[in-house]
Amino acid sequence: MPGFTSHLAKVGPRRLRLPHAPVRAKPAPRSPANEASIASTSKPRDRPSFPCVEAHAARESRLRSSRRSSNLATSSTPQPPLPASEPEPPYERPNPRSYKVYHHSKPLPLTYAPPLPDFDIAYETWGTLSPAKDNVILLHTGLSASSHAASTDLNPSEGWWEKFIGPGRALDTNQFFIICTNVLGGCYGSTGPSSMDPTTGQRYGTRFPILSIFDMVRAQFCLLDHLGIRQLYASVGCSMGAMQSLAAGWLHPERVGKVVSISGTARSSPSAIAMRFAQRSVLMADPNWNNGFYYDGLPPHTGMKLARQIATITYRSGPEWDQRFGRRLRPPPQSSQQSSTRARDSGSPRVPALCPDFLIETYLDYQGESFCLKYDANSLIYISKAMDVFDLTSSALAELRLTPSPQRSSPPPLPPSLASHTSSPAHQHYHWLTSHSKSHPPPPNPPAHLPELAEGLRPLANTPMLILGVQSDILFPVEQQREVADALRMAGNQAVSYYELGGVWGHDTFLLDVQNVGGAIRGFLS
Amino acid sequence: MPGFTSHLAKVGPRRLRLPHAPVRAKPAPRSPANEASIASTSKPRDRPSFPCVEAHAARESRLRSSRRSSNLATSSTPQPPLPASEPEPPYERPNPRSYKVYHHSKPLPLTYAPPLPDFDIAYETWGTLSPAKDNVILLHTGLSASSHAASTDLNPSEGWWEKFIGPGRALDTNQFFIICTNVLGGCYGSTGPSSMDPTTGQRYGTRFPILSIFDMVRAQFCLLDHLGIRQLYASVGCSMGAMQSLAAGWLHPERVGKVVSISGTARSSPSAIAMRFAQRSVLMADPNWNNGFYYDGLPPHTGMKLARQIATITYRSGPEWDQRFGRRLRPPPQSSQQSSTRARDSGSPRVPALCPDFLIETYLDYQGESFCLKYDANSLIYISKAMDVFDLTSSALAELRLTPSPQRSSPPPLPPSLASHTSSPAHQHYHWLTSHSKSHPPPPNPPAHLPELAEGLRPLANTPMLILGVQSDILFPVEQQREVADALRMAGNQAVSYYELGGVWGHDTFLLDVQNVGGAIRGFLS
Repeated sequence: MPGFTSHLAKVGPRRLRLPHAPVRAKPAPRSPANEASIASTSKPRDRPSFPCVEAHAARESRLRSSRRSSNLATSSTPQPPLPASEPEPPYERPNPRSYKVYHHSKPLPLTYAPPLPDFDIAYETWGTLSPAKDNVILLHTGLSASSHAASTDLNPSEGWWEKFIGPGRALDTNQFFIICTNVLGGCYGSTGPSSMDPTTGQRYGTRFPILSIFDMVRAQFCLLDHLGIRQLYASVGCSMGAMQSLAAGWLHPERVGKVVSISGTARSSPSAIAMRFAQRSVLMADPNWNNGFYYDGLPPHTGMKLARQIATITYRSGPEWDQRFGRRLRPPPQSSQQSSTRARDSGSPRVPALCPDFLIETYLDYQGESFCLKYDANSLIYISKAMDVFDLTSSALAELRLTPSPQRSSPPPLPPSLASHTSSPAHQHYHWLTSHSKSHPPPPNPPAHLPELAEGLRPLANTPMLILGVQSDILFPVEQQREVADALRMAGNQAVSYYELGGVWGHDTFLLDVQNVGGAIRGFLS
Repeated sequence: MPGFTSHLAKVGPRRLRLPHAPVRAKPAPRSPANEASIASTSKPRDRPSFPCVEAHAARESRLRSSRRSSNLATSSTPQPPLPASEPEPPYERPNPRSYKVYHHSKPLPLTYAPPLPDFDIAYETWGTLSPAKDNVILLHTGLSASSHAASTDLNPSEGWWEKFIGPGRALDTNQFFIICTNVLGGCYGSTGPSSMDPTTGQRYGTRFPILSIFDMVRAQFCLLDHLGIRQLYASVGCSMGAMQSLAAGWLHPERVGKVVSISGTARSSPSAIAMRFAQRSVLMADPNWNNGFYYDGLPPHTGMKLARQIATITYRSGPEWDQRFGRRLRPPPQSSQQSSTRARDSGSPRVPALCPDFLIETYLDYQGESFCLKYDANSLIYISKAMDVFDLTSSALAELRLTPSPQRSSPPPLPPSLASHTSSPAHQHYHWLTSHSKSHPPPPNPPAHLPELAEGLRPLANTPMLILGVQSDILFPVEQQREVADALRMAGNQAVSYYELGGVWGHDTFLLDVQNVGGAIRGFLS
C-alpha cells in the first residue's frame, strides 16, 4: 500500500515507540487550564500510532527487501537468472519434491469456459494400491489445503488430516490406497491462476478461466485414468471437499463406490456466498492485487490478511470463543510506554486499544498474519467462487448442460409427484420418503428447492452416502446437511447414513474431532 | 488508494468498456491450434477489468474533484473561505438546522481517559413535555444512527424509527415526550473524533479519547439536566441503544422509571467483537485512513464500503437471504460486451463474474456503496469499540470503578449463594430464581458468568425491564437476551418482561417489525 508506506517512511521509526492506543498519548488531564501546553505539543509527530496498521507497511517493506536481495542473490550465483517475466510466485509453497505431479497434456473441458490447454495436478498417496486397483479412496481438500493430508516419506511434516490417515485410522492405510490432490485452481503444485499460461508464456492471473467444482473433479479423474484406476472404493471430502465428493459421485456414479460428505453442501447458500464475497472484496480492493496481475510485484498481503480474518470467523463458533477466549484481554505489553496497560499507580482502568486487545482479536490477527503469505490470492478468489456457484438442483444442472457419465446406471424413477416439479405434491410425499435418523426430525417447512435438489441428486440414488454435519457450524449449517440427506432419500437413495455432531468447534470440527468424525467415516467405509 | 488510482489513470477510460468477467475476454476456444493468435494479443491492455474494483478509484476521483471544485466555489463566493485547517468533514451530514444542539461547557468525566473539556449533543424531540416533566422517554440509537428517529417540523424526512414514534404508536407522542440524541462519539452533530479539539484547534482524529457506553449515557444526562428533566419515564434502546438503555438504568436507577432493551446485550460476546474487529481492521488498513487523520484529505471510503459490507452480513439472517435472494443472479447487463451474460447463441451457461453477480453480492455491494460516504470512519471505530468493551458483570464493573448514583435505592440483598461468587451454589438457586416466560426454558448449562452478571445488574433490581430478543439475530443472539433476563431475575428483579420473536429479519427486526416489537414496547410502557 504505497500511500501508507510513504506516510510511515516520512515519520520514521520513532513512531514505533509511541503509545499503542490513542488515549494515553496525553496522560495529563485536559482542562482549560493546560490547553496552551497541549496545543503547543500537538504537532503531527505526537499523533498516536497503530502497530496493527504498521504491520502491513512493515510486511510490505520486508517483502520488498527480500525480493531485492533474492534478485541480487540470483544474479550473483552461477545459475542463470530467472527471466524477468517469470519471478517466483510470492506465496510460500511446499517443496516441489515433496509431492508427485501429473501433467495432463490434453485440453480439459471446462464448465464455463473454453478448454484449459493442459494442466498439472499435484498429488500424494498413502497405503498400497491393491493389484486389482479396487481399494482406492480419493480424498478431496477444503479451499486452501495442499495435497499434504498426512506425512509421507517425501514430506515427513504433519499433514492437514494427519490423525485421520494411517494404519487403523479413519482412512485405514492397511486397507486403502488414499490419493489426495491439490485442487485445480490451487497454488500448491496444481495448475491455477499463478501458473504459466502456455498460450501466452505469462502467468494466468485473472485470465485464468472461472472454474467449477465439476472442473476440479474432472481433473482428478484424468489423474485416476492416468494411474489406471477405474473404480474408487470411495470419494471422501470435507467442506469444499464434500462438494467435490458429491460432484465425483454425481459425474461418475459407476466409478465411485461410496461418497462421504462432511460439513459440505449440495447448494451454496446466500449466507455462505456473502461471507466469501466479503473476503474477495477486501482482497480485490488491495492495490497490490492489481486486477490479479501481481506476480511481477508484491502480493496483496494486506488484503489476504483481512480476508483470512473474515474467513476465520466462519470456521469456529461463538460458543467456542466464549469458552476459549471469553472477554479476556491480551497480556499487557512489557513496555511501560505501551498505553493499553492500566496505569497501575493511578488505579485507573486499563485503556482499551483500537488495535487487537481482546484475545479474540489477537487470535484473528494472528490467523490472518500467518496465512497472508502462504497462499495465492487469485487461487482464493477463483476457488471460493467455484464454491459459490456449486448447485446440484436440477435447474442449475440443466443450465450447465453437463454430460452425464455414459456408464451411469439408471436411478430408480422418481415418484410422479416429484417428477411433476410442483412442490406441494412433493411435500405430500415428504414424510413418506424421508426415513430420518433419530437425530433430526423432518423439517416442518422443507425448503422450497428440496424437490429440485432431489431431482438433481438422482444420479447418486444408488450410491451409499455418508452425510455428516455439525450443529455449531455457521458456514455450512446443519440445515444444509439435513437438506442433502433429505434430498438423497427423496431421490430414492436407501443407503444414506446421516450424523449430526454437537460440540463447539463449528466448521473446523472435521479437522479436530478424530473420535466422532473419524469414527463415522471408519464405520461407513468398513 | 493512491497506488490503485494511478494504475487506473495510466490505463484510462477505455478499460471501462472491457468485459466484466475475465473468462469471456477470449471467447474463442483455447487449443494448441490457436495459441499463437492468443499470445500475440495478450498485451496488458487486454487484461480483464473489474468494475467493482474500479468503483473505488472512480469514487476517489469524484471525491477529489468535488473537493477541488468546492474549494474553488468557496474562494469565488463573497463568503470568507474556510480556513485551511478547517475543511468540512468528508461525510454527508444532516442539515445542522434540522436538529437542536446542547453545548456542555464543563468537562465530562470519562471512563478510560481524562475528562473531555466540553462537548455538544445533538438531539431531537417529539411530543409535548408535561408540566411536571414526568413523561419523558429517552430513546437511544444504534451505532450509526442520527438523532433523527422520526420526522419533525425541522426535518420532515423519514427517521430511522419513523413507524414507532407518533400518536398511538409504540412511543406514543400523545402521552410521551421523546428525546433522541446523536451519541457522543458520533458524527451527526454530537462531539466525536471529527469534531474540533478545543485544546488544539484541530480535529480530534484518533486523539479523541476511547469512549465507553457509560460516557455516552453521562453526556445524555447532562442534556437532561440542562432541560430540567429529573426523571425519565423510560429509557428505550435497540442494539447498541439497548446497551445504553441498560447503562442509563444502572447509572441512575432513581432517575429511570423503566428500561427497554431490544436486541442488545449486557456483555459483548467474543463473536460480536470478532465481527466488529473485522470491520475496524479493513477500515484502518485503508491508506486513506492515515491513522485517523484524514480530515484534511480524502476519507477511507473504500475501507468504509468494505466494513459496511461485513456489518450488513450481521444485520439480517441466512433464512432471510434464502427467501429474498436465494441463489438468483443480477439481471444480465444490457451491453453485449458484458461477459457475464450467457452467450445465448452458443447455448453455453452464463459465465460467473468475480465482481458481484449473485443478488446477495449486489445487495452487500449496494449497502456498502450507499453508506461509505455517509458516516465518519473514526466514529465507526470508536463507537464499535465502546460496544466491545461494554460488560455489566460485577468484576468488569469493579475494574471501571464507576461512581454509583448517590440516589440509588438499595437493591434487595443477593441470596448468600450468589454473593459467595461460587458458581455451583448459584446454579442450585438458578431454577428457583428464574421465573422464565414460556417461550424459553431455563438453559441446562447457564453460562459461567451468569452469577457475576446477576451481581453486576443489582442496581437494576428494582426497575421494571422489558428484554426482547430475536431468534434469528446472529449479532446479538437470543442466548444473550435470555442471559440478561435470567441475570436480572437472579438479581432479584420481579418485573422482567421477556419476549422472543421468530421471523427471519435477524438483528434488523427492531427496525422492521412494527407490530411485534412496537406492540411489546407499547404494552410495557402503558
